This record gives sequence, C-alpha cells and structure tokens, in this order.
Amino acid sequence: MAFLSEILDITFQKPLFCSILGNTMLSTVPGISGAGPTPEKTLLTPVLDAELITHGTITSLSIKPNTPTGCPTPASITRAMMELTGIRPLFINAGLCHKPTVPCFDAYGDPGEDPRYRDALPRAEYLYTQGVLMGRFLSSSYDLLVLGECVPGGTTTALCILRALGYNASVSSSFASNPVPKKEDVCRMVLERIRNGDIRSPLDIVRFTGDPMMPVACGIAESYTGDLVLAGGTQMLAVSAIIKSLGGQLPRVVTTVYVRDDHSANVRNLAEQVGVRIIYVDPGFGDLGHAGLARYCIGEVKEGMGAGGAMFLASLLGNNPETIRNRILSTVCAYS
Amino acid sequence: MAFLSEILDITFQKPLFCSILGNTMLSTVPGISGAGPTPEKTLLTPVLDAELITHGTITSLSIKPNTPTGCPTPASITRAMMELTGIRPLFINAGLCHKPTVPCFDAYGDPGEDPRYRDALPRAEYLYTQGVLMGRFLSSSYDLLVLGECVPGGTTTALCILRALGYNASVSSSFASNPVPKKEDVCRMVLERIRNGDIRSPLDIVRFTGDPMMPVACGIAESYTGDLVLAGGTQMLAVSAIIKSLGGQLPRVVTTVYVRDDHSANVRNLAEQVGVRIIYVDPGFGDLGHAGLARYCIGEVKEGMGAGGAMFLASLLGNNPETIRNRILSTVCAYS
Repeated sequence: MAFLSEILDITFQKPLFCSILGNTMLSTVPGISGAGPTPEKTLLTPVLDAELITHGTITSLSIKPNTPTGCPTPASITRAMMELTGIRPLFINAGLCHKPTVPCFDAYGDPGEDPRYRDALPRAEYLYTQGVLMGRFLSSSYDLLVLGECVPGGTTTALCILRALGYNASVSSSFASNPVPKKEDVCRMVLERIRNGDIRSPLDIVRFTGDPMMPVACGIAESYTGDLVLAGGTQMLAVSAIIKSLGGQLPRVVTTVYVRDDHSANVRNLAEQVGVRIIYVDPGFGDLGHAGLARYCIGEVKEGMGAGGAMFLASLLGNNPETIRNRILSTVCAYS
Repeated sequence: MAFLSEILDITFQKPLFCSILGNTMLSTVPGISGAGPTPEKTLLTPVLDAELITHGTITSLSIKPNTPTGCPTPASITRAMMELTGIRPLFINAGLCHKPTVPCFDAYGDPGEDPRYRDALPRAEYLYTQGVLMGRFLSSSYDLLVLGECVPGGTTTALCILRALGYNASVSSSFASNPVPKKEDVCRMVLERIRNGDIRSPLDIVRFTGDPMMPVACGIAESYTGDLVLAGGTQMLAVSAIIKSLGGQLPRVVTTVYVRDDHSANVRNLAEQVGVRIIYVDPGFGDLGHAGLARYCIGEVKEGMGAGGAMFLASLLGNNPETIRNRILSTVCAYS
C-alpha cells in the first residue's frame, strides 16, 4: 500500500507540529488505558512523552520508552520524525496532573474528572476560549499546523462524547484487545448523567464528559487561519464531531492504518458519519525487522502523540517512505 | 530628540514580541515596588498586565490599567503597540504566584523567594535550561525577538545581582522617588548571605538572589540564533551582566529615556561597565497632552512590560513617531 492513502496538494511555508497534553481521571480506572505500566502511572505518560520527544531520552525517570509489552511508544516515532525533519515541536498543556518537565504553551486547565460521577471539565468554556487565543497566536506564525494529542484514557472520553452527540461510534484502544465492556460501562453511566443534566450547547457535553484536550483543540480549530490537520484516531474524530456541532469548519484528520484496521472500532464509518476527510499513513511496520514495531500490525499501540501526523508531515516535507521508515527503526533500536 | 537614540540596520522577516512574567517575594516588602496598589497586590500585576495586552481590557477584576497615582501602566503602552503592529505577543511564565488568565509559554518555575533569608531560586539551573529550550523553539520560528519582562520588585533583585557580580550599580524604580535606602538594606543583607555561601558559578548568584525572569532570559539568550533585543531598564542590564559572566554574547538592550534620565540610577554608566549597547526610545510623553503620560517625564513608571521595546519594534516596522505617539494616546485615553 502507498505510504499515504491519498496525495495532497497542501502548500505551506512554515509548518508546526504541536501536541496537546491532557489527563482524564478515567485512565486510572483499571483496564481502561494501556498508556502506562499501571493505571495510576498513565497520568504521568504525557509528561514523559514530551520529555522523550524534546530531549531524545526520558530524563526524569530511569525507564525506556517502551510499552509494558515491549512495543516502542508512539512518542518515540514522533521523536524520530522531529529528528528527521528538524522541526521543534510545541507542547500544549491543556490540563495535567503532573507538572511538565519541558516548556509548554499552557492553557491553565485542570485534568478531566471522572465523568461518571461529576462534571469532567467545569471550565470547558474557558478552555475553549484559551484554545481560541492559542489558535490566533499560532496563526500569526505558522501556515500549517499538525495538531496531535496525548491523553491516556482519551478514547473512552471520545466514546462518551461521540455517543452523547448522537453518533453510532465504537472507539479504538492502545490495547491489542480493546476493553470494550469497560468502556461501555463508563459510557452508560455518563449518558445517564447527561440525560438528567442541563445541556444547552455542545460545550456543555464537553463539560459533562470531555477531557481537557478537546475544548483546547476545538478553540484552536475555531481561530486558526492556516491549514490545520488533526493528528490522531478516534479521539480526533470526537474533536471533529464537537467542531461540527459548534458549526465550525472541519479540519482534515490523519492517523495510522493500524487505527483504521482496528475491528473493535468503526473509524472509516465514523469519519463518514461526521463528514471528516481522513488520511491514513501506512509505515509498514510489519516488515521493518523490529518485533515491537511489528506488533503495531496486530493492533498494539496503533497511534498516539500525533505519531501518524508526524510521519505525514515528514512525508509532506519531501522525505520518502524508506527514509522515514529507516529513521524510525534507527531511533527505536537506539532505545532497546 | 530623535525617537530612537540611534539608527539600526536590523533586517528581519519574522519578528516576535515576548514578555517574561515573574514574581519575587521582595515586591511584598512595603515600599519596594510601585507596580501595584498595595505591596501584596504587586504579585498579581504580571497576570493583569498580560490580560490587558491580550484582550485590550482587564477582564478578571474591575480595575483600570492605571497606577495608584493615575499614570497609564506600561502594559497599556505595550498594548497600543501590539494593536498598531498587529503582532500577537507571547507571554512566558517564568514563575508566578497566581495562575495566568491567558495562555503562556510556561517554564514551570516558582516565584522567587525573599533572598534576605533563603535561596531565591533553588532551581535556577533548571530554569536556565528551560530558557535554553525555549530559545531553541523560538529560533526555529522568528528571526527577531524583542524580549521584555514584568517582575514587580525586579529592580531590587537586579541591584543584588549586579552588586554581587561586582558592578558599581544603582538601579531604577517605578516610583518617582526611588526607595533607595530600602533597596540598599535588602542588598546589604543579601550580600552578607552570599559572602557566607558557596558560590561556584554565575548561576549560583542567581540561585541566591535572582528572580525567575533572569535565568529564563539568560537561557533564551544562550540558544536563540536570531537578533535578540532585551527590552527593559536596569533589570535587563542585570540579565546582561549574568550573560556576560556566563561567557555569552551580549544582546542589545532597549529602554526608554525615562529610565536613562533616572538620576537615582546610573544606567548609562552601568551599560558601559557591562559592555552593553543600549538604545533609548523617546516617545515625547511630555507634550502629548495627557497628564498621566506626562508624569513619565518626571520619573513615574518610566518603563515596564517591554514598553520601550514595543515602541522600538513598532518603529523598526516602519511606523513613524507621530503614528506611534498618537496610537499610545488614543489607547490610554480609551481607558481613562
């Protein structure tokens, strides 16, 4: 298959790769998130990922950027693409439990609360306006913005948002075996709360059950004047669904074929329902000769930290698929 | 006098105006800082100033951007210049007591402690490396960086730093009558602590008695590859002195003639001692027909929030002095 699912004629002069970091307390529910060695430690993943991408190594803990099952994390793929392109990424802190160890553009939000029991984001409107301000600033400097995310537990908030907005949605997972029943349990309780609540706008649904990445991303989409590409799987489809219900213009979404091929999710169909133009990146990890990367093909990890978008951007900048694949291989091999 | 004290041949394509926000607990010592209605409230000034410059109005409190004596704050001058040039400023949070209400590029530092009694910045080295990372990011996007600051009480930390580095320094003040004896009292106690301490590097002196703006600014100066202009008075001369003692290349400094003409300070002489090329902006506030602005000429306020640098940048961008003066007048009149 081709490296990109379609050829794009995007012209740009000054691109930026950006990733929005956030937490939702749902990632601490056992079995929900695979983005960390224990449920509690998933809360630290965005901070460690940003550190890895910035420094090329995790400096604040003595650990390797691999999943508990030995797959290279998506952050290490993003790191490889930043090395290859020379792009300095910008991290946006939308609301984290732990203080980042590298500089971030900060929206001064809070981590998302558990939406089964209380409003996830009491300040959702504020975070949206912070995103609008960020988008204005970024518009003044960059004409192409590839916007990723790192929110452990974020596919579950995405499920709740999509269902609450009326979509027939199944979301992906970083686990090879998607913990669908656990996510459905959460979603059932959340939809019950929402049905009994006072919903007047799409941002009310975000307040009920979103994660902090979502309103910030939607705010950026509202004000950003250049070419915007949302880099992620079902989480970015949830962001797209909110943008649509707010009456905004839908950005492109880019993700990996591993998300598309997740049979526990309905990515293609969901993108159609929302009306999103979605682009798939196929880095061909199956025949790179790395056992951990090959496991992406059987459904582990799949995507994250805008890895699909980072590969997409490297391609737009003129790097051919072999260069991209080789750089990923050499970067992840240096970690193992 | 001419609007700028010298004609500069800076060529650039993509400029950025940036201001570093920080607190030092010294601003809460009664009589030290004029940057706020009460000593305690000086801690909030950077947050309110950033809000004013971003939104054109202070939204989180019902107050006007004037000093207790009725002078327009320097932030309102900076706001006027952002309106005139269309530049979207970036705020850097180096270490504040209060959460900013607008997005900031955050170094995740802490407010500076009172250096009379304890280390002001236990993590000075870390803040310096955060500044280095920020400078790298900014280098990739902008070829001219005008870097201001807003640190109430910062002339007193500047005095301590300059004296500790061996300079014959007297610093300026936002008060018409500089509270020199109070600052000298603080400085005497700090120098005593430093003499008894373990000083091995210039950053140790910053750790002993700096404010969080300083190591971040020095880190940016270390890594930034474009044209860097430090926008401020004696505080930026203190930053320059640290940069020099670290062996770095000295950036230009730009400030107002009101700082230069402060007879309680020795700005010209100090710049010579450090070896800094300093540029003065003369906006001629005396004959603009605004009583509050005219008081800048008798030594109130003088400078702050990179106001001198913002006017300098507006001039570099081709705005003539009358356009700049008229915009400042109309902006501050709208607030009174």
